[in-house]
Amino acid sequence: MEYRKEKDSIGYVDVPADKYWAAQTQRSSENFRIGGNLMPKEVIRAFAILKKAAARANQEAGVLPADKADAIAAVCDEILAGQLDDQFPLVVWQTGSGTQSNMNVNEVIANRAHVLKGGKLDDEQKFLHPNDDVNKSQSSNDTFPTAMHIAAYQALAEVTLPGIEKLRDTLQEKSEAFMDVVKIGRTHFMDATPVTVGQELSGYVAQLNHALRAIRNTLPHLSELALGGTAVGTGLNTPEGYAENVARHIAELSGLPFVTAPNKFEALAAHDAIVEAHGALKTAAVSLMKIGNDIRMLASGPRCGIGELIIPANEPGSSIMPGKVNPTQSEALTMAMAQVMGNDVAINIGGSTGHFELNVFKPMMIFNFLNSARLIGDACASFNDHCAVGITPNHSRIKENLNNSLMLVTALNTHIGYDNAAAIAKKAHKEDKTLKEAAVALGLLTAEQFDEWVRPENMI
Amino acid sequence: MEYRKEKDSIGYVDVPADKYWAAQTQRSSENFRIGGNLMPKEVIRAFAILKKAAARANQEAGVLPADKADAIAAVCDEILAGQLDDQFPLVVWQTGSGTQSNMNVNEVIANRAHVLKGGKLDDEQKFLHPNDDVNKSQSSNDTFPTAMHIAAYQALAEVTLPGIEKLRDTLQEKSEAFMDVVKIGRTHFMDATPVTVGQELSGYVAQLNHALRAIRNTLPHLSELALGGTAVGTGLNTPEGYAENVARHIAELSGLPFVTAPNKFEALAAHDAIVEAHGALKTAAVSLMKIGNDIRMLASGPRCGIGELIIPANEPGSSIMPGKVNPTQSEALTMAMAQVMGNDVAINIGGSTGHFELNVFKPMMIFNFLNSARLIGDACASFNDHCAVGITPNHSRIKENLNNSLMLVTALNTHIGYDNAAAIAKKAHKEDKTLKEAAVALGLLTAEQFDEWVRPENMI
Amino acid sequence: MEYRKEKDSIGYVDVPADKYWAAQTQRSSENFRIGGNLMPKEVIRAFAILKKAAARANQEAGVLPADKADAIAAVCDEILAGQLDDQFPLVVWQTGSGTQSNMNVNEVIANRAHVLKGGKLDDEQKFLHPNDDVNKSQSSNDTFPTAMHIAAYQALAEVTLPGIEKLRDTLQEKSEAFMDVVKIGRTHFMDATPVTVGQELSGYVAQLNHALRAIRNTLPHLSELALGGTAVGTGLNTPEGYAENVARHIAELSGLPFVTAPNKFEALAAHDAIVEAHGALKTAAVSLMKIGNDIRMLASGPRCGIGELIIPANEPGSSIMPGKVNPTQSEALTMAMAQVMGNDVAINIGGSTGHFELNVFKPMMIFNFLNSARLIGDACASFNDHCAVGITPNHSRIKENLNNSLMLVTALNTHIGYDNAAAIAKKAHKEDKTLKEAAVALGLLTAEQFDEWVRPENMI
Amino acid sequence: MEYRKEKDSIGYVDVPADKYWAAQTQRSSENFRIGGNLMPKEVIRAFAILKKAAARANQEAGVLPADKADAIAAVCDEILAGQLDDQFPLVVWQTGSGTQSNMNVNEVIANRAHVLKGGKLDDEQKFLHPNDDVNKSQSSNDTFPTAMHIAAYQALAEVTLPGIEKLRDTLQEKSEAFMDVVKIGRTHFMDATPVTVGQELSGYVAQLNHALRAIRNTLPHLSELALGGTAVGTGLNTPEGYAENVARHIAELSGLPFVTAPNKFEALAAHDAIVEAHGALKTAAVSLMKIGNDIRMLASGPRCGIGELIIPANEPGSSIMPGKVNPTQSEALTMAMAQVMGNDVAINIGGSTGHFELNVFKPMMIFNFLNSARLIGDACASFNDHCAVGITPNHSRIKENLNNSLMLVTALNTHIGYDNAAAIAKKAHKEDKTLKEAAVALGLLTAEQFDEWVRPENMI
Repeated sequence: MEYRKEKDSIGYVDVPADKYWAAQTQRSSENFRIGGNLMPKEVIRAFAILKKAAARANQEAGVLPADKADAIAAVCDEILAGQLDDQFPLVVWQTGSGTQSNMNVNEVIANRAHVLKGGKLDDEQKFLHPNDDVNKSQSSNDTFPTAMHIAAYQALAEVTLPGIEKLRDTLQEKSEAFMDVVKIGRTHFMDATPVTVGQELSGYVAQLNHALRAIRNTLPHLSELALGGTAVGTGLNTPEGYAENVARHIAELSGLPFVTAPNKFEALAAHDAIVEAHGALKTAAVSLMKIGNDIRMLASGPRCGIGELIIPANEPGSSIMPGKVNPTQSEALTMAMAQVMGNDVAINIGGSTGHFELNVFKPMMIFNFLNSARLIGDACASFNDHCAVGITPNHSRIKENLNNSLMLVTALNTHIGYDNAAAIAKKAHKEDKTLKEAAVALGLLTAEQFDEWVRPENMI
Repeated sequence: MEYRKEKDSIGYVDVPADKYWAAQTQRSSENFRIGGNLMPKEVIRAFAILKKAAARANQEAGVLPADKADAIAAVCDEILAGQLDDQFPLVVWQTGSGTQSNMNVNEVIANRAHVLKGGKLDDEQKFLHPNDDVNKSQSSNDTFPTAMHIAAYQALAEVTLPGIEKLRDTLQEKSEAFMDVVKIGRTHFMDATPVTVGQELSGYVAQLNHALRAIRNTLPHLSELALGGTAVGTGLNTPEGYAENVARHIAELSGLPFVTAPNKFEALAAHDAIVEAHGALKTAAVSLMKIGNDIRMLASGPRCGIGELIIPANEPGSSIMPGKVNPTQSEALTMAMAQVMGNDVAINIGGSTGHFELNVFKPMMIFNFLNSARLIGDACASFNDHCAVGITPNHSRIKENLNNSLMLVTALNTHIGYDNAAAIAKKAHKEDKTLKEAAVALGLLTAEQFDEWVRPENMI
Repeated sequence: MEYRKEKDSIGYVDVPADKYWAAQTQRSSENFRIGGNLMPKEVIRAFAILKKAAARANQEAGVLPADKADAIAAVCDEILAGQLDDQFPLVVWQTGSGTQSNMNVNEVIANRAHVLKGGKLDDEQKFLHPNDDVNKSQSSNDTFPTAMHIAAYQALAEVTLPGIEKLRDTLQEKSEAFMDVVKIGRTHFMDATPVTVGQELSGYVAQLNHALRAIRNTLPHLSELALGGTAVGTGLNTPEGYAENVARHIAELSGLPFVTAPNKFEALAAHDAIVEAHGALKTAAVSLMKIGNDIRMLASGPRCGIGELIIPANEPGSSIMPGKVNPTQSEALTMAMAQVMGNDVAINIGGSTGHFELNVFKPMMIFNFLNSARLIGDACASFNDHCAVGITPNHSRIKENLNNSLMLVTALNTHIGYDNAAAIAKKAHKEDKTLKEAAVALGLLTAEQFDEWVRPENMI
Repeated sequence: MEYRKEKDSIGYVDVPADKYWAAQTQRSSENFRIGGNLMPKEVIRAFAILKKAAARANQEAGVLPADKADAIAAVCDEILAGQLDDQFPLVVWQTGSGTQSNMNVNEVIANRAHVLKGGKLDDEQKFLHPNDDVNKSQSSNDTFPTAMHIAAYQALAEVTLPGIEKLRDTLQEKSEAFMDVVKIGRTHFMDATPVTVGQELSGYVAQLNHALRAIRNTLPHLSELALGGTAVGTGLNTPEGYAENVARHIAELSGLPFVTAPNKFEALAAHDAIVEAHGALKTAAVSLMKIGNDIRMLASGPRCGIGELIIPANEPGSSIMPGKVNPTQSEALTMAMAQVMGNDVAINIGGSTGHFELNVFKPMMIFNFLNSARLIGDACASFNDHCAVGITPNHSRIKENLNNSLMLVTALNTHIGYDNAAAIAKKAHKEDKTLKEAAVALGLLTAEQFDEWVRPENMI
């Protein structure tokens, strides 16, 4: 490979000749050979939005010439279009402030702009300085958390919320369609009094509606941007009105309601907005784990399980058992939700161990956040498309189970009291009889009374 | 000990003669000798509220005579007054629906009411039946989650939120008082540009304000009550209008804005409201961990640490090192917050593994929730009273550190550029000089310019 | 209440006149009104062992007179006998080094010994000084971690391991008894090829044997005692040979193989032994969660579930559904295991955030450890006594399920190939036929071949 | 793109014409568009080892012709050489048994072998059948857990253990080199009695030695292979002696001491070996978090922190503060360890929620395990190479701190008692004097006695 020399405040370093990044990116890639997790592209794109916004705000404040601002903006547009995806080689496991990814963006913008202007990568003088121009009125300490909020908010708005909503809508539709299909209920995993398939599904819909609300409740805190705080939150080296102005530009560029954070010290030193929002994501994960488990269990069988729901058969289920069909979407969904619950703990640890003016677990936190946001959104969409839309009741099995159940005896409580009803259920269970047979045998009521009082369709 | 016989649907069991509980409580106490965690008294008191409310709603619906309702209410008042605290011997590690604690309450109310009416505990016929009267229009499956929400909401309203607010108010006051005390900032645990003591504290205030908001956001879901859903959420065996009516009674008795849950299936089968609310508690814990750590570190020393804050000396710090004073309130606070983060995981696991119509991790979930709610509230109050109120800046140390710092060089960026400023800092560091000496030696600016441009009080 | 004055290095404080504790205990009880979790008694008793051992080691080293050592030992024996249980009022949420509980023990020993010698609690001069005598050659920093290891090791040896072994033995016995009961297997919660009830149970036995081994693997690290390290690990103010000698005394008093830690710096600054041992406990919890879930699901029904196992009916299961029986021991077990998994996270956070020469999350860590150790031991014993011992196969249900299953088709793979076998299973499923009917209808084999090749008893 | 038709037991599907995978892989790639986490290559390579081993064992048992076994082995070698890396497109979030990745391997081997034999991808008849030949005597249910153990053991042996050992060796060397550099100790983050730099580092060495031992303790369980259990653990459709034989082949191919699992039911239905081994990894993570934090704090400054250690300056630390150097290796290390602690929770949830004969959280579990194993190994190596090897004491700062400290007073305990020593320390602190001045002023000892008794070098 060919190399060129690039320089930073420490000295010279060899950089691949065809790459736009410069000294600090190169150092980081050599100093942090850890794992294989690249800085998520969502973060890089969020940086492109903020660098463009900062250039415009600087231009408006009169501290950056228009041609420099234009040059920055042009490269940002290329990044957003995905044209420079191979220019961001750094991993998550770098400096905890994300400084090196901020500098990666600064360096790529400076060098690419220079080339767009007709310069060469090995020119000594460049059109833009990565720190003095591209990073003007900024610090890694306020840009990285800003990029975190932009990326997090976008992921929720574009992936997570639509995914959950899609599944919620399908379950809502199914709930209405099957509202009158009476089936046995189960508590403690044991037979209980009846519910309808639609009622069961309505519980899941309620869970998802609450999850959506919980996630949306966290958006206002996520909408607060650190940019303008610079190194420690004081806003050192920024022009008047810059913080508000740059937030306005970001809001316009992203189409999302970002504002400048009222307290920049909190915005640099803590990432409670990420912790809070991920708390809502893990609440959603808890709900989805329950839903995924229930559906796989209700569809269990086909002959030796519960078998009350039929789910789509999307693929051969077993490499050894011919004809086997498995609840694979439930499995993918619940695995993903276990991951989200683990990610939550990593985020808590990161969020709680910032020191003084700066939290230095930033890349790890946003990495986990975006992973969770995508997992929930994608897994809901997949579960929806390949499972939920095809759910149908297994009417014959449902009827068989319902008629067999001993818990219909509960309908008799208000007629003959709890203790007498219990005696009927026990006799039926012990002697393997129907409830009616046991009831009449005990002389507690007549067959006619039984038929009148014990009607599953009246018990829902 | 003397015993009397008590009977349930399974048969007779010996119960201590002087206790009000009956067969099912006794069975549970014998069948679950696990750990030592009693069902929290907050849950028992919440049950007293709901049993009284249910009795009134049943009376109004015409399904329970007034004298029975009055008898139930009278015992509930005794429970609320703490007069029957020794009548609830069951542990958390029982049936996952909390049925046995519900029956414990039912049995105590029935037997105590009978005695209040002049009966004896060993009378064959009692004035109230624990199931048919005290548990009328109820099931454990809807009472226990209702008690969970009542207890959780009360704990947040009475302990957690006031505790956080108290600490927030003190920090706010301190922040204002020390807003002009300029000190060195720290990022990456390394010297950075200046902030003021008040600015630092304002970050904590912002964190706590966000935590308060996050917790309050979860109250609407907690205000939804399962009562009226009975066994599986369908409301079997309840009179018309009962669910709304009983929620109204509970709201009145508790003074909190409870309503009946729009979807009872969700309210029995999932406890997402608990998961969501505890997610907000763990967010608060993350914030408090940061605050507690920062303050202990800022107060470290007295001679070989950072030493910029002085905190109260409340007790001898060491059994071997005479005169030692330690940041013990920070230690208690951060230990408690670690517990809250652990509790969160237990709650997630419980919340995610309910099956079908019923979650059966209820006692464990509310046990952890109440533990966290109390720990946060109490630890904040303790930290406030014994630490935060006494925080004062160590002015001499602050000044010494500030004047020593190399990061004041940042003020020169806009005058001489980042690279030149870096050279000054490096020279000063390497040669153990002041910034001014290094700047002048490098010929990058005059001593006068240095004095004009580098002013900590202008960098905040 | 009456009070007397007690003094420490900070000054005077009022202490209840009838209590043996003195100034530092009293200060702590006033300064830390947090939660309600008392320092576990196992820790107090471990302190009694170590204070007695230290007194003897000091006596042998010639730095403590025999009569003082005897006096200390006498009170330690009272503590071990449970006679002074009401003298330890401090909570877990105190100083993170546990200094205040160490001083609580020192103070109680000093004052109680003085009274045993005929003195009065308000005498100015006491026979023993809590620091100079009772705490001689010690620091909280080495005594508290020593007490942690003693208490943890004892809890594992006396509660956890025996509890798991008891359950393992029962499951082993049941596994052998039911080794020939052929039943349908289940993978993905779906019908699969056959196993026997005994084989299924043998998997649980293997899990518990691995769990026992994993726990025992952690005992050597737990057997290392910090005592002798004093304040920072250097052993300042201890006589020659003291560390080894005191460990020998503790080993003799406890009957457990304790040794002095080869590296005292690690023993004070980190609690990796606790973290490691709790890692084994959480592994056991994971195993027990699986076992508890499986058994509840296999016993589900009685008529609309899987119903292949019959478990004991220990109590009425529902306050509204008469005759209902629930898998309550599984519920208690799985709730407890969720708690252990939460405790693990709290312990990890505590273990990872020690600073320099001392970890200050000690009380929280041992509190969670002992909670888990007890929960596992007790829950296993309870599950064993009230559930496992009574497990029997439901032969009729097992046979019915087995004969129905489509997955017996797997036996045909080696005769007619996977694809043909799959076609048979699909046809049978689609047309609700038996496998034999479908096989013959497809002309892939004769009825005689089917009977010869498809024999569940040959598939295990 | 061009496509060809491939068929499985469900029907035909279009597959990219130039890929070796077939119908089931294609279905999975379409049905699970979730997140972006590919099945780790370590798992694919482990599969190559096991498929080759299975082919040989089948050949030796006489159930697979030699030419078929050779063909399978040839493709496995290509996979191991990394030549087919682009043939495994499936993500972690698929079926929970990993069936689809097992089939992906089966399909690629069958098709690639056919091509190697001179056939074409769209030939109707192929030389090998993915199920009947490549998967012979196997099921996903025993192959995937076998691949998990192979990949996990290899990662520990090749990445994790060497990484920790490397860091341990460096710290050991540094510990010896600086064993006599006396410095102030710190407990509660406060000044305490002296230790040496070498003693401090020896504590870290002890931690890492314990971590290495804890990880090694888990290898025996990981060495047990499920292969031979097939669908449900009974070994259906396997030849006599196959399980032992295939384990022997795997041991030979991998050079690691694998054996066949004594209990196959446990090996399929639970992944306690993964849970247990990851428990050891998280213990290591806890240790490394402490070490990483301590070193960053000891190196804090350069002028306003503790500053007792000097660490290498590897890159410019700040995009706004010129000349700033940060403890970036500590940051990467501690972020990675937070991730490991989060991964642990995901693994616990997965491990605890298997059902009956099969755990279906397999891909998620091994994904997290491998991530942690690599993060620990890589982060240790990075921290070692770019930080630990360059650690040097800052002698002047160390001396200044030591001489300043009030805690040297502890040396006086044995001469004048704890209470008198405390009085000296307090007076010195209050009046900002040296200890000697305060001691003499109080008349408790002479200046000569002070000099004789208070010698830091005698306090270690």
